[in-house]
This record gives sequence, C-alpha cells and structure tokens, in this order.
Amino acid sequence: MTFHVYDTTLRDGAQQEGMNLSVSDKLAIAPLLDELGVGFIEGGWPGAVPKDTDFFARAQKELTLRNAVLAAFGATRKVGLQASEDPQVLALLASQAPVITLVAKFDVRHVERALRTTPEENLAMITDTVSFLVAEGRRVVVDAEHFFDGYRFDPEYSRRAAVTAFEAGAEVVALCDTNGGMLPNWVGEIVADVRETVGEGPILGMHAHNDTGCAVANTLAAVDAGASHVQGTVNGYGERTGNADLITVVANLELKGGRTLLAGNGLAESSRLAHAISEITNISPYARQPYVGASAFAHKAGLHASAIKVDPDLYQHIDPTLVGNDMRMLISEMAGRASIELKGKELGFDLAGQGEVLTRVTTRVKEAEANGYTYDAADASFELLLTEEVRGERPQYFTVESWRTIVERTGHRGTVPVSEATVKLQAGGQRQVVTGEGNGPVNALDHALRLALATVYPEIAHFELIDFKVRILDQMHGTDAVTRVLIETTDGQRSWSTVGVGANLLEASWEALTDSAIYGLIHAGVDPR
Amino acid sequence: MTFHVYDTTLRDGAQQEGMNLSVSDKLAIAPLLDELGVGFIEGGWPGAVPKDTDFFARAQKELTLRNAVLAAFGATRKVGLQASEDPQVLALLASQAPVITLVAKFDVRHVERALRTTPEENLAMITDTVSFLVAEGRRVVVDAEHFFDGYRFDPEYSRRAAVTAFEAGAEVVALCDTNGGMLPNWVGEIVADVRETVGEGPILGMHAHNDTGCAVANTLAAVDAGASHVQGTVNGYGERTGNADLITVVANLELKGGRTLLAGNGLAESSRLAHAISEITNISPYARQPYVGASAFAHKAGLHASAIKVDPDLYQHIDPTLVGNDMRMLISEMAGRASIELKGKELGFDLAGQGEVLTRVTTRVKEAEANGYTYDAADASFELLLTEEVRGERPQYFTVESWRTIVERTGHRGTVPVSEATVKLQAGGQRQVVTGEGNGPVNALDHALRLALATVYPEIAHFELIDFKVRILDQMHGTDAVTRVLIETTDGQRSWSTVGVGANLLEASWEALTDSAIYGLIHAGVDPR
Repeated sequence: MTFHVYDTTLRDGAQQEGMNLSVSDKLAIAPLLDELGVGFIEGGWPGAVPKDTDFFARAQKELTLRNAVLAAFGATRKVGLQASEDPQVLALLASQAPVITLVAKFDVRHVERALRTTPEENLAMITDTVSFLVAEGRRVVVDAEHFFDGYRFDPEYSRRAAVTAFEAGAEVVALCDTNGGMLPNWVGEIVADVRETVGEGPILGMHAHNDTGCAVANTLAAVDAGASHVQGTVNGYGERTGNADLITVVANLELKGGRTLLAGNGLAESSRLAHAISEITNISPYARQPYVGASAFAHKAGLHASAIKVDPDLYQHIDPTLVGNDMRMLISEMAGRASIELKGKELGFDLAGQGEVLTRVTTRVKEAEANGYTYDAADASFELLLTEEVRGERPQYFTVESWRTIVERTGHRGTVPVSEATVKLQAGGQRQVVTGEGNGPVNALDHALRLALATVYPEIAHFELIDFKVRILDQMHGTDAVTRVLIETTDGQRSWSTVGVGANLLEASWEALTDSAIYGLIHAGVDPR
Repeated sequence: MTFHVYDTTLRDGAQQEGMNLSVSDKLAIAPLLDELGVGFIEGGWPGAVPKDTDFFARAQKELTLRNAVLAAFGATRKVGLQASEDPQVLALLASQAPVITLVAKFDVRHVERALRTTPEENLAMITDTVSFLVAEGRRVVVDAEHFFDGYRFDPEYSRRAAVTAFEAGAEVVALCDTNGGMLPNWVGEIVADVRETVGEGPILGMHAHNDTGCAVANTLAAVDAGASHVQGTVNGYGERTGNADLITVVANLELKGGRTLLAGNGLAESSRLAHAISEITNISPYARQPYVGASAFAHKAGLHASAIKVDPDLYQHIDPTLVGNDMRMLISEMAGRASIELKGKELGFDLAGQGEVLTRVTTRVKEAEANGYTYDAADASFELLLTEEVRGERPQYFTVESWRTIVERTGHRGTVPVSEATVKLQAGGQRQVVTGEGNGPVNALDHALRLALATVYPEIAHFELIDFKVRILDQMHGTDAVTRVLIETTDGQRSWSTVGVGANLLEASWEALTDSAIYGLIHAGVDPR
C-alpha cells in the first residue's frame, strides 16, 4: 500500500510562537524537505496569505522537486456560495499546486457555533468543494478539523462527514486532533471505527498536536489502526506545543517498524536536514529532540561511560548513524575518569594509565563547571585544558597587555552607534597596539584581535567566527549575573567551539575569542613565533 | 489502590547535558517537588557521589516534607561480597532515607558483558541486597535496568529477576526502558505479561526515556497494562532526550483519566512550580512543553482568534487554569486584526470598530517582526506601540542626546575589566550628563540611565531589572548578525517585558532599557515633567 509522508512545516509549523518565515525562507526549506524524501510539501494558503500566493508563484519557476509534490492549503467554500465562484477556492486552483488540502469542519459544534451554519450545509460545502477541485484535475486531501473532539461528542456526524468527503472524490481524509488533547488508546479506537465505516480502500491520515505529549504516539496508534498518511512538521514546529515531529514519526515507523517511507536514504540525512531547517527558521534546535537532537546520543554518566567502552550497542536504542547523528561522550562534573579518558581518546590524547593527569583534569573540570563553564559544547576549550594538564602549558602565541571597547551613539533613536576596540599585546617579539571597528563591541574585539595577530600569524586570516551564543547564567539577577559565551569558528575546512565566562559579556567573549585563536593556530600546525 | 508518583529530577534528571545541581540547588528543589504533591523524591546516590551524601545529611536537618518521602538511589551489592559488608550498600542505609531504590540488572546480556558475572549471581545480588535492606526496616524499590530490551532478548530471565525481587521483599519493581527505544504497544504487551507472571498484588512501576518521543505514552501504556508507580522528572530533564515528563504524565492521568494522584491541589500549581524549578536548574524552560509551557495555550492564527472570541473551550483541550497556565493571544505577523483587537482588550484598549488603527498596528507589527522584533514575549513594548498608534505618540519623559559605554581590561587574564557608561539626556527641562559603572556594559548603561532620570523621576528608584535575555538572530553570521534583547523589569508589585533589536547588543539593550523606563513611568501614573 502507498504510504504518504506529508510535511506541513511551511504551513502549520509556521504557526509556532516566534516563527516568521519569508517567501525566501520557504523556498530554501522546500528543497531540504524534498531531500529528506517526504511525499508532500504543504506550502501555505495561497489567496488568504499574500506571502503564500507569492510562494506558489515563485515555486513554479524556481523549485525543482525530485520526490515531493506541493500541496496548497485552503478551506471548503463559503456558506451559500458556489465553489466555482468562491475567490478563496479559485485562488487554490490558481496556485497550480497539484494537491489541494481542504480544511473542513468535522465537529458539529464548530459547524453550528463557529461557522454558524447547519450540519447539512457543511456537508454540502465539503461535497461541492472537493468535487469541483477533483473535476479540475487536482488531488484532494481533506483535513478533518477537530475530528477527534467532534467524534467524541457526536460520532455519527463525524463519520458522515468522512464518508461525504470520500464520496465527493477526496483521495485522503486526514483526521485532525486540532486541539491536541487525545491519548493513544482513544486515537486507536476511533481510527479503527472510522476504518470500519469507510471500508478498506480509502486512505485515512493522521494530523496530531502535542498538547498531551503524545503527538508521536497518537500518530503511531492511528497507523496501527489503519491510517497510511501521516502529517507532521520538521522539529515538531507548530502552534502551542507543536505538531507531531515528522522525523521522529518516520524514524519510529522505519527503524522500529521495518517500513521504508522516505524517498532516497532520507533518514540517514535527517539530523543534518533538521538542523539546516532550524538555521532558516531561526528557532534554536532543541537538544533533547529524539533521534536528531544534539543530546540524543550523548552520554554523561560515569557509570555508563566505562560500560560503553565494552559494548556501545548495549547503551543506545539504535545506531545513531542511521539518522545521521553521533554518539558523544560529555565531559562534565558527573563524569568519572572513564569518560574523560574516552573523551581524551576522541581528541587524540592517550590517557590510559595516566592516573594523575586524569585526576587533575577531572578536578579542573569540576571547578570550572562550578564557575559556569561548560565543556559539553566547547570541545576546543576542553582540548586546551587537556593540553595544559598533559604538556604543562598551552603554547604561548601572544601575551595580552590590555583591551578596551567603546560603543557610542550620538544623536536620536535610530542613529547607528559606533563600536571600536583597542587591543594591546605582545607577539613575535613585537608590541602590537591595534584598534578595530565593528558593528558591535564583540565584533570590534574580534577584528582588533585578528589585526593584532595577523602580521605575526598570517594564518589567522582564514579563521572566521560563524556562531556566537550568549547565555545569562543566573537569570534572577539580570545583568548582575554571570555571562557565558560560546563561539564557533571555522577555517573553511572544520569548525571548533570555545567557551568564555565572566561577570561581563565582553570579558567572556574575549576569553572565547583568544582560546579560539590559540586552538586554531595549534591545529594549523603553527608554532609560537 | 495506592498509586505512586515517583520523582527522579534530582537524580536521573540531573544527568541531563548542561545540568549541574549543587547541594543547595537540590535542597531548594525538593520543597517544590513536595509542594507539587509527589509521593517520592529520589535525591541522589549517597556514598557514590559525595555531593549526594551531603544532600541526605543536610536534608535530615533542613528539609520538612509534607507529602513526599525521600528515596536514596544505589545499586545491588558487588559481585562476591555480602550485602551487609558492601560499603556502597551501607552508605544507602547511612543516608537515613526511608526508601532505597536499587538499580539491578534485568538484561542477561548486561549481566554477562558489563557486570561480567553469571545470571545466577546477579539474582543472588538482588535477593541479598533487597532482603538485607528490608530487614533493616527500609522500603525497597527495585529499578529494573534495561528491562524491556532484556525482555525482548530473553523474557524468561527478565521475568525471573522480577519474581526474585518481589520474593526478597521489594515493594515495587520499576520496569526501566533505560535506552528509551520502546514504543507504546510493545510496552503494553510486556507489562501485561509481567503482571500475569507476578500476579495481581505486587506493585509494578514504569521508568521511561524519550528516545522515540514516546516517554509519556509509554508510561500511560504501562499504567493501562497494570503499572501503578510512575517515575519521571519535572520538565522531562534527563540524559539524552530526557525522562518522561512527570507533570505531563500526571496531568494526562488526572485530567483525562479522572484519577487523583498528587497530594494537595498540586496540578493547579504545576506551571509555577515547573518554572521555579527551571530557574534553579538554570535550564531555559521549553516553551512548547505540554501543559506548563509558555506556548502551551498560546494562539497565533488569525483564523482561530476570531473564533476563540465566540467560544474559547472549543479551542483548547483543557482549561489552562487546571495546570496553573493561561490562554494567551500572540501578536505576530500571522495574526489578523481579530487577534490584535483581542490583545488590545487584554491590555485595556478597546479597538472594536477602530478599523484604521487596527490596520496601522497590524502593519507596524509586521514590519517590526520582519526586522527581528517579537512581541510574543514583550507585552510592554507592544503596549507602547499600541499607545503610539491610538494616542498619536508615546509620553515624552526624556530626550536622549547620546550614550557611550567603555569596557577596559588592563593586565593579564583574570583581571576584572572596568565597565562604565555615560548618558546625556534632557529631562524636566534640564540637561543630564551622568556616568554609571557596572560589572558589564549593559549593567553600566542601566545604572547611568537610572541616575540620569532619578532626579526628575524619583519613582524610577523602585524599578529593578530582573531578567535579561540575548538572542543572536542570524546565527550563520556570528557577531555580524542582528541581536535581540528581552528585558524584564519589576517595580516590586508586577513585572513587564520589553524588546530591543540592533546590529549591536548595546543598541538593542538601550532600546529595551528606555522602553522599560517609559512603560514603568506610565504605569506608575507619572506624567512627563
């Protein structure tokens, strides 16, 4: 049987608090969804949302999809209007999308109280709109809004609406838990009953929200009960608690259920694609996300670390490479010497049998973490710490005398402030006094540090700061709190992360910037000059 | 039947990447868990972790729990040692905890490969340790490590181990999905089989991890199959993808299943308690968290906003006050005029029928959000925007001429930098030129702004900045990116949030700081002087 993987990141996902997708964002995300191998990409509501009208127009010219087809989302015709004369319906046709997904009311209370029409007129709206679009050559999915709540209130009406949609020519009726309040056993029973009502042929779908923390399980329960079309969003984006996380749903069905649902080998790329999409949506990735999260295969407990050396497969539910993720050992206060030894090995330091070094490193890590440092996400800083303890010191590329930043705005609101930084340091036997400018104080400090080092270490010209994260560590005390900065730098080939901590954002940034330069120079094979 | 709600935030939750709980943190979290109304608080592993030994010692003197009992976590005795002579077991006794939770191996592969002993010796370790602790007067929970993976490999051994634990006197055997790979139907079948094996009397528990996105559903499936002890953590903290979110589990069982599980009226306080705990753990709350998340009852879609006016209960799966949360309308680009009208009403502006104002506000919000602003979390800034559009302008308390910050570090790594800010502005007909110091540039700016305003507006002395969040909006471009700052200020009675955006952290902070002062003065009933 054909199984549909239907993505609605660009439409229902974009309802998430804080998300704001431009047409270009959508045009950048669609090819990533196609690469993931989904069958359907719901792009938006042409006609109702001007941006979405543009998206479909540009998609026609600019998008080449290998696996997916585009779906345009819209509603059944207005009360009392012909489908063929309803501008909203005509805009769906005009989008040229081969698939039209129509949201329709399946809860009789919503028909009466929100739509303010009769149950019969609502059914006629479904029949008319579906049959009109099918006659125009489109594949039609019906999103059965509030299906489960409606069914629990009046099962007969919800069943009739489903039968009506199929009779009018709908290819799929996707049962929606719009308010997200369902539990898996309820979903299983209801879907099984609808399956019995409509018979074996028609395709039933599931559209879940995560308000009970069960969006994924509800989708699996629907599939067990006979659904073969799953809707969801990448990273579980969506209104309130979000939609079902499509990658988690598919990974469960493929890796635990033995199906193949995505075109190509999409699942093996899913971690990379989920992160690439979060770069575009600008929503920070959730580290604890199943399968693709940064922490999903990260081990911290000292207890486990020693056993993982024996047999990694006893400690992970799947091989992380199946979803393009990695097992990671975390260095932390909780970690015993075993995990520090393993982490050292990962970084090329053989610490086996070096009990004293291991003790010193473990102690330093504990102290540093108590002061706000974290090495979980700053491998380069941890490697510098390890280098100091193993070699006695880190390479002395330069000695800092002082630094200063000035940011000044003269004039009214809207005037751009001027930022500059002055760095004084010794490198290569020379004293460097250099001023850099930037669009902010950290940017200016970064420029000044590079300028001060570039004459002696021209290799630094290849380094580029690509990510900068700020975390206020004790949020109850506002700007009096400790600030932690994580910086990611690349040399074009690989990237590395460093951490800095201070009462002051600039102090913390300076530490992370200088550590980054030192780490980069070491790995470029440069000796102190 | 007694139902156990067993919290392991302080032990298994603390395994989360980036979490680092001190003894004081644990002593601050425990009363909040007790207030939530859980029956058991697992505090840590005394003996194995020195910090946890301290925790139990101090808990004896400093903690008064009304609802919960403390549980100490530990392991079965070592291979070949008497339980009564094993220092690890004796440390559990010494903790004085009335409940001891023993992790024991239930997967025969782990017995052979990680523990490196025989299946029979492992069973003897369970018998000896449980019966020794029971004889010493303790209630014993056995955490059946890797139970489900073990059962799927060799059901007979896992069943025997469960029977062994109960025969030795264990009060509960908690079946652990240690690697988190289970799906709800697997859990349901396995728990039902174990229930059949051990009979109706003994208490079976469930300990789930979220690696398949099903931790909550797996816990519910176990309860449906006969488990009556649920383990989990507040906010779903835990290693990798986290543990089952205890509040979500309990909310589903109470609000959907009609049980009463928490002492007091804990659920009604759960949003506040979950956030209070996240302040202590210093892990940013996850907005999309079911039930207690900031977005859990937030509505954005313009489509829904108009219908919500008609009948809110048709659009939410439960009444949010049942979990101490609120319905919120979000102001955003996606929002139609209906949601702006509703939001205005929330803030005391009656915009009904004011079509032109609504259009202007909607347009400004769209433009601002395109530039990086967000009003979702900055009600005070949105109110100032609304004030400008309704009244024509905001009150002019002061006019800024210029501001400047200087941060300077002289001397070596570790020297504390000096931060100062100079603000020049006109207020109350006077020119103010004031310099403030701080432990960082934002802190210094905040101090200088207050100093400059305080002579004319002494009311500002009551305002205090209590939260400061920084977000880099386009993380691909490092410090060249746009920075968004959210500031929360309190006057001791209530608090308000403002937003600022700029290429520069300080520019963004300045905007949020000045908006905060203006909003605070308006709500203190102060007129421009």
